[in-house]
Amino acid sequence: MKLGRLNHIGVAVPDMQAALAYYRDIMGAQVITEPFDLPEQGVKVAFVNTPDAHGEPTGTQIELIEPLGESSPIAGFIAKNPAGGQHHLCYEVEDIEAAREWFTTQGKRILGPTRIGAHGTPIFFLHPKDMLGQLTEIMETPRGGH
Amino acid sequence: MKLGRLNHIGVAVPDMQAALAYYRDIMGAQVITEPFDLPEQGVKVAFVNTPDAHGEPTGTQIELIEPLGESSPIAGFIAKNPAGGQHHLCYEVEDIEAAREWFTTQGKRILGPTRIGAHGTPIFFLHPKDMLGQLTEIMETPRGGH
Repeated sequence: MKLGRLNHIGVAVPDMQAALAYYRDIMGAQVITEPFDLPEQGVKVAFVNTPDAHGEPTGTQIELIEPLGESSPIAGFIAKNPAGGQHHLCYEVEDIEAAREWFTTQGKRILGPTRIGAHGTPIFFLHPKDMLGQLTEIMETPRGGH
Repeated sequence: MKLGRLNHIGVAVPDMQAALAYYRDIMGAQVITEPFDLPEQGVKVAFVNTPDAHGEPTGTQIELIEPLGESSPIAGFIAKNPAGGQHHLCYEVEDIEAAREWFTTQGKRILGPTRIGAHGTPIFFLHPKDMLGQLTEIMETPRGGH
């Protein structure tokens, strides 16, 4: 296992429109994607692009996630954190199956099956109690860039 | 205000040596800096470098922070999160004074004076309740690169 790119930081938000206005008007984000629904995961998602060390818009993204429906897996997080807050970190790997096997052999609890994430590539989540208190997402690097 | 580089994600850890082993042996980090004390801030710090979109080690860093002494400002966080966890996000700006004035005019609460941070440049923190639930650090970009 080799540490991959920190693809995004997941931030749970109670109100997507208010969050988009915050990143645009207060933080000065230049590139924010249109929000879209991921009904299988019970969330609405949008990405804020940040500049990298060279000023290109390929830095680590902020993934804004709003609960979609009452059974959303992040509804509980928002109930505990009404203003929103940092929810997870996501690292890229080249081979999702190899990564799944690696974390399994290391005794790390994987939360559910490998599935397709917000970037259209396979992902899985690891239990925060096994990961220094951080809910950790592992995603396969998109083919043909980021 | 223009959104700057996401310099680092602050992760509070109860045990620096265990955290370094986790990032090296489980996550496969290739570059981790030597831990050092910041006694004025009551923390011990080390940085995990992540690769950027081009594979260079200039991606967003993970800043590991361990409480230094009983009066450390992160002792309470560790008491509530014994395994550790995501603590803050840090964005770069070109001019720290201009940024401080910007957030003040936007009605955002700034936590204490501007001071020198772990990268040797001026920083300040903003109240998480004013920042979508995220404790947010603003740091001036180091001169001559990152």
